[in-house]
Amino acid sequence: MEQAGPMKVVITGGAGFLGRRLAARLLDLGALDGQPVEELVLLDVVAADGFADPRVRVVVGDIADPAVVRDAVAGASSVFHLAAIVSGQAEAEFDLGMRINLDASRVLLEACRATGTRPRVVFTSSVAVYGGDLPDVVLDSTALNPQTSYGVQKACAELLLADYSRKAFVDGRVLRLPTVSVRSGTPNRAASSFASGVIREPVAGIASVCPVVPETRLWLLSPQRAVDCLVAGHGLDDLGPNRAVNLPGVSVTVAEMVDALARIAGPEVAELVRFEPDPEIQRIASGWPGAWDTGRATALGLRGDDGIDAIVRAHIEEIGGRSGALPV
Amino acid sequence: MEQAGPMKVVITGGAGFLGRRLAARLLDLGALDGQPVEELVLLDVVAADGFADPRVRVVVGDIADPAVVRDAVAGASSVFHLAAIVSGQAEAEFDLGMRINLDASRVLLEACRATGTRPRVVFTSSVAVYGGDLPDVVLDSTALNPQTSYGVQKACAELLLADYSRKAFVDGRVLRLPTVSVRSGTPNRAASSFASGVIREPVAGIASVCPVVPETRLWLLSPQRAVDCLVAGHGLDDLGPNRAVNLPGVSVTVAEMVDALARIAGPEVAELVRFEPDPEIQRIASGWPGAWDTGRATALGLRGDDGIDAIVRAHIEEIGGRSGALPV
Repeated sequence: MEQAGPMKVVITGGAGFLGRRLAARLLDLGALDGQPVEELVLLDVVAADGFADPRVRVVVGDIADPAVVRDAVAGASSVFHLAAIVSGQAEAEFDLGMRINLDASRVLLEACRATGTRPRVVFTSSVAVYGGDLPDVVLDSTALNPQTSYGVQKACAELLLADYSRKAFVDGRVLRLPTVSVRSGTPNRAASSFASGVIREPVAGIASVCPVVPETRLWLLSPQRAVDCLVAGHGLDDLGPNRAVNLPGVSVTVAEMVDALARIAGPEVAELVRFEPDPEIQRIASGWPGAWDTGRATALGLRGDDGIDAIVRAHIEEIGGRSGALPV
Repeated sequence: MEQAGPMKVVITGGAGFLGRRLAARLLDLGALDGQPVEELVLLDVVAADGFADPRVRVVVGDIADPAVVRDAVAGASSVFHLAAIVSGQAEAEFDLGMRINLDASRVLLEACRATGTRPRVVFTSSVAVYGGDLPDVVLDSTALNPQTSYGVQKACAELLLADYSRKAFVDGRVLRLPTVSVRSGTPNRAASSFASGVIREPVAGIASVCPVVPETRLWLLSPQRAVDCLVAGHGLDDLGPNRAVNLPGVSVTVAEMVDALARIAGPEVAELVRFEPDPEIQRIASGWPGAWDTGRATALGLRGDDGIDAIVRAHIEEIGGRSGALPV
């Protein structure tokens, strides 16, 4: 990519789990695609605090408000659009999901178009754009068939990003994330929250109630590798008309996740997981693909985790090297 | 379908080519799905004149204006959403296409949701939702991959209709129309306008300039059968989660259309067609599928035309039984 010089980078959802990690990574790298990052705008509905760096500008505002977004995006070279209402909440609060997942994406694309400089835009999307009768391994040619409001909103945003790119209003790319696990922190209202909870809570010595049956198959990416992919995905040139890249994942059942936990943290930790299936969450999770073809991502140099053990170990390492359930 | 009694039916784009035909058909039938049509609202940006029938209410207004649409839809049992900015114009006037093809569809869905009575909603969509590397025959499982702004807007509207239906806000169905030919009247700004022009103009004794090469393959449905399908599509029950039905078409090249014209109206009529390919229209038309699998439509009882000769004859019959290029 050709950039004129120092870059202004915007992260929407900059106070969120991935947003904060991406921000820290960019500040650490100091550059994106070989150009120095001069300004890093963290836009979110709450303040992205804790960044004591002169390059960071924290903006608190409604990302569906055109004036807020236009101001944040003015002069930006690059935008990472991570802000979203997660799946479970978007299902329960339909209008909020439409406003943030669809309207705000449109507002962002319009603000980027208004800059007139065709900024590079990275959208994150999700396994939730797939659904219905799926092949065992989803291909790039598999039809988007979302079965949740979240998935529909993401699929529409993907289509719009592709068209804004084709019209040369932006230089966009969609990175479809596997379910990110293990998220640190507290459970969220994503239908996939359990995919982190079944590891995170037991490791912290807390019981975890899993709302799906053990045979439920998931497609996982660690937050560490997700941030790698966001940075590398930003750097991709010449994507062609297909702007969506399915990022690599690890295909595992929840039972296999718990087995890995027993191997790594001990059986007494794994025994903290209890299964109490919830029909609605089971419906949603069963509709996600358990794997997709990663040929394109691999050819583009994007890589995921080496296996479920690596994912569990990365989490334990990050929180300080040991399980809270184990004697200190 | 269970209806409480007399129906209020709304047609958006009610002054348009298909809208007027559908209105005339419904007035003629006097009923829809066995229930009397008490009120027929024809909503459009221009007046749908010429309907001297006490059941008709002509509403002139902006279909992207929530107040206009809420008023038109209040109490409606059924809505046919035909209003659109056609493909060529949506490509040239991006913002207008977004407003009418996407925003107005959303406004309509919200207005229907606000009725609280889950009205039956028929959306029309198009071959333009497909594109890119396509199989010779598009299947129901083929990914939507629109390559025009019009196609993207239609694909998003389809996804939203499916979600509003899943949430039981409306009882929606999408009828994907093949290219409708032969349209009477004058050329419009659809990229597919030539698909009518190569028959209509010569039959009227006027030269027709075709902007694509003769080998270009089209998938056609006559306006007569399109209206049949709209009425029958409204009556479908139990569509399941897949709300989109690809309507049956006739797969022909433009050369085969001209051959049919020569057979039916005479070689001197067919000679009025001249080929002058336009790169942008060729790009768009070449991206459409030349055929799609009609298994589902056929199983649902929807039928198209018997062949290109039937399509040409239906047009000539409708305009009075003879070609204007022939001696009266």
